[in-house]
Amino acid sequence: MADQRETAALKVQHLVLEAGDDLGRRHDALLAIDAEDIEALLHAQFSGQSDSVAIGLGASPGAAVGQVCFSADDAVEAFDAGADVILVKDETSPADVHGMAIAEGILTTRGGLASHAAVVARGWGKPAVCGVEAISLGADQFTIGDHIVRVGDVISIDGASGEVFLGAVDRGDGAPEDDVPDELGILLGWADDVRAGTLAVRANADNADDALRARSFGAEGIGLCRTEHQFLGERLPLIRQFIVADSPDDEAKALDALAAVQRQDFLALFEAMDGLPVTVRLLDPPLHEFLPDTEGLAVSAATGDLASDDHVLLDAGRKWQETNPMLGTRGVRLGILRQGLYQMQVEAILWAAVERRRAGGQPIVEVMVPLIVDRSELDLVRKWIDDEITAANRLVADPLDVLVGTMVETPRAALLAGEIADASDFFSFGTNDLTQMTFGFSRDDVESKIVPEYLRLDLLVANPFESLDTSGVGALVRSAVENGRARRPDLKLGVCGEHGGDPASIDFFASVGLDYVSCSPFRVPVARLAAAQAVLRQS
Amino acid sequence: MADQRETAALKVQHLVLEAGDDLGRRHDALLAIDAEDIEALLHAQFSGQSDSVAIGLGASPGAAVGQVCFSADDAVEAFDAGADVILVKDETSPADVHGMAIAEGILTTRGGLASHAAVVARGWGKPAVCGVEAISLGADQFTIGDHIVRVGDVISIDGASGEVFLGAVDRGDGAPEDDVPDELGILLGWADDVRAGTLAVRANADNADDALRARSFGAEGIGLCRTEHQFLGERLPLIRQFIVADSPDDEAKALDALAAVQRQDFLALFEAMDGLPVTVRLLDPPLHEFLPDTEGLAVSAATGDLASDDHVLLDAGRKWQETNPMLGTRGVRLGILRQGLYQMQVEAILWAAVERRRAGGQPIVEVMVPLIVDRSELDLVRKWIDDEITAANRLVADPLDVLVGTMVETPRAALLAGEIADASDFFSFGTNDLTQMTFGFSRDDVESKIVPEYLRLDLLVANPFESLDTSGVGALVRSAVENGRARRPDLKLGVCGEHGGDPASIDFFASVGLDYVSCSPFRVPVARLAAAQAVLRQS
Repeated sequence: MADQRETAALKVQHLVLEAGDDLGRRHDALLAIDAEDIEALLHAQFSGQSDSVAIGLGASPGAAVGQVCFSADDAVEAFDAGADVILVKDETSPADVHGMAIAEGILTTRGGLASHAAVVARGWGKPAVCGVEAISLGADQFTIGDHIVRVGDVISIDGASGEVFLGAVDRGDGAPEDDVPDELGILLGWADDVRAGTLAVRANADNADDALRARSFGAEGIGLCRTEHQFLGERLPLIRQFIVADSPDDEAKALDALAAVQRQDFLALFEAMDGLPVTVRLLDPPLHEFLPDTEGLAVSAATGDLASDDHVLLDAGRKWQETNPMLGTRGVRLGILRQGLYQMQVEAILWAAVERRRAGGQPIVEVMVPLIVDRSELDLVRKWIDDEITAANRLVADPLDVLVGTMVETPRAALLAGEIADASDFFSFGTNDLTQMTFGFSRDDVESKIVPEYLRLDLLVANPFESLDTSGVGALVRSAVENGRARRPDLKLGVCGEHGGDPASIDFFASVGLDYVSCSPFRVPVARLAAAQAVLRQS
Repeated sequence: MADQRETAALKVQHLVLEAGDDLGRRHDALLAIDAEDIEALLHAQFSGQSDSVAIGLGASPGAAVGQVCFSADDAVEAFDAGADVILVKDETSPADVHGMAIAEGILTTRGGLASHAAVVARGWGKPAVCGVEAISLGADQFTIGDHIVRVGDVISIDGASGEVFLGAVDRGDGAPEDDVPDELGILLGWADDVRAGTLAVRANADNADDALRARSFGAEGIGLCRTEHQFLGERLPLIRQFIVADSPDDEAKALDALAAVQRQDFLALFEAMDGLPVTVRLLDPPLHEFLPDTEGLAVSAATGDLASDDHVLLDAGRKWQETNPMLGTRGVRLGILRQGLYQMQVEAILWAAVERRRAGGQPIVEVMVPLIVDRSELDLVRKWIDDEITAANRLVADPLDVLVGTMVETPRAALLAGEIADASDFFSFGTNDLTQMTFGFSRDDVESKIVPEYLRLDLLVANPFESLDTSGVGALVRSAVENGRARRPDLKLGVCGEHGGDPASIDFFASVGLDYVSCSPFRVPVARLAAAQAVLRQS
């Protein structure tokens, strides 16, 4: 709570004062501070005392108070009427982001630290508590034990501890941003000096606003731009048009509409990060993530409430429905099945790079192919990308600064990293997916149900989605680094999973020799410190 | 077609005659025959000519002709009325097995070679064609292109080629079993001599009937008894009672009822395989596989057609619904979450072993724990098993012959095989799941959609669910064998995925030094030959 914030502020001020100009003492100061101190300074905390009624996963730190809403649309309506809102859902999907964007905080009953709600909230620095299984959610109320909470009732959530409180709990005065001691900036400057030339820190950001914020936190590039986030909100109809297109003509029209918005997205992003590298990941999630829930539509169809447009969506939903979507038609597989999609994205990326260059900017672009299992997939897609690069380079005086690389996020890609490096300028380890597949742990399913029980029984030493499993997943990362670099010594290596912001994991990534970590913008200060600590500990 | 059968018979007769008593020529004969020849002799084939209207995955060889039925219940009704039936479904589940059991053949529109329909059909030697995406299935008819096929219409399917024909295509006279040349037995006897002391061949079988059939095909044990198959058909209400139990009392009652049937299952199985090892896998699939489809129930609920009992099932279905069930609450995770289940199964297994011993039999039991990711899980479960073994051994004069081991089917278990071997008497590689997780390929989703396209584009050299991916999945198997045996030289090693019946994969398993392969009973003759060929090639 707020005490922690005050304690952290005093600690940082004291350490900086003590260290003065002495390099050894500065290093000691860096080792004496920890991630929790920085989190406490950067996020709102509750100052009041209250008893929590439930506890879930602290998915994105910060303290939020607001009226409960159960749908994104209701949340927007309440927000427009002036209310602070906590959006409560079983789980969120891309269709909910407009409601998440205006919410003070997000609460879900299912899903873990790598669920949609958690990842999006962390990206925005918005408090979130996930996987509160004790909550039973109805249409316009939820129950926790004996308590009933209705639409419009006020609750408070602590995204660090995972606690849920009834009513409004006091927060300290003022936004935390206004209240960060200058000494934190000094300390992080020392951290940057220590890690210079070793582990760089980038951020995961999907648009210009997030990129600028990341830059203000000290990010040295974008390690992951998730292009699927550009198809949400008002863009959702465009991607749906593409999904349901049943002729080459309709598909081309839908792709043109998507290209128009993508070009502007990339242009703004490259401008915000001018002079710094931006890794753009081609579309990754399965298409049904952009479609409404089929069960809901099926129920509407059975009761005669389904609009005719929605029949098309129901058919599309069924067509793209999968038993295990995480292991299904997504990433490069989708790119290969519907080839126009990646070609459109690559064209838009290079259009934006050319435009930036013409405007006197310095775009540095890294195009990243997700989910490959074999070099052959990368060879195929790389050919399309290289063709676009060649075409774009005809439009500029000096060749564009573009790398083409791949995620290493399936165990097979890690096992065959040597071969894959022959076709790749860089690897970015997607340690979320790599953890899912190495353990056979669906993050949406096991993190709230299995992992807590395993931790309680000492079957796991830590939640592997929070802190990298160095003995299993780490073994794959280490061998991929060794085999990749053996084949291609200049191979650029980074990590863009959630682990990129976790101090223990950063220590491991430094030890195996990665070039950078990439994490949520709000996690960048923590990563800068942790990277310096890793250097100090390993030197 | 039938020509192939005749050609194969002549070939086998000729090779045996030619070889005579000469050992070198016998070995040449073994290398000259191949799996297709044996399949052709053991399964029915079409002799008539016809044009197929669609093609899917040849999921279980053989030729079937029958009237189309769209539900298991309708299939049973038509069968009782004297009809030959082809069961057509989008996909099958444990709830359909009574209909599958009486069907001549099975046709599915979704799912691949390792889908429920394919695995069950192969186990029974019943023709099946899976993943025929060109078929659009309605409630009482399906369409292929311009053709409409209604309930009761006759179709023919070729489970080897994956072809679907309208109407009845001619098959040769008589059942294939009656028509297998004696020379095949002679040849397989030579194969057994060659592979003696190297790679043993076991079968996957779940009940005494299948076990006896496997034994008649030459199986030297059961490498995989899937205990979930014992909870199907009329037993389904028992496992559902367990799933929905909401008090310790109700749960105990449900477990007692399950224990009663499990004891008899194991007793019969151990009797059928007396003197040979039987590997019993503790419950593996997620619980919702035993529950009806929630979407169907939700639609019934919305239209007011849901019985009150079904409300309980809908709630249970929702509770156990998972985003990616393949990576969710199954295997040892479920065993740990609901501890009574495994304890009940282990108690029943040992009860049956004691009974067999008392009856003068020689039960050889291997208890297998599925889906582990860490030694700690095995330590926990092994303690329960060891306690039951100790208790059982008090009831017999000489200690029972029981081993306790684990599946190696997650990449993490393979990576940490050395540690896990310390707690395990044997490993059985579950190469289906290991392939799914290493590639991030859900067999239900990618095998009909992605894999054919990848094969067409030369992105894959073979379907990795048919023939083991030696460079990726094989690398994990090889290192697990080396690390496991280094820690425990007497570690028993086998494989029980579908690859256990694939000649190319058997060659690989022999080369890394496995002790046995286990496959569908009907695949045992092929595996006996392939194992001998591997020995001959590698010597």
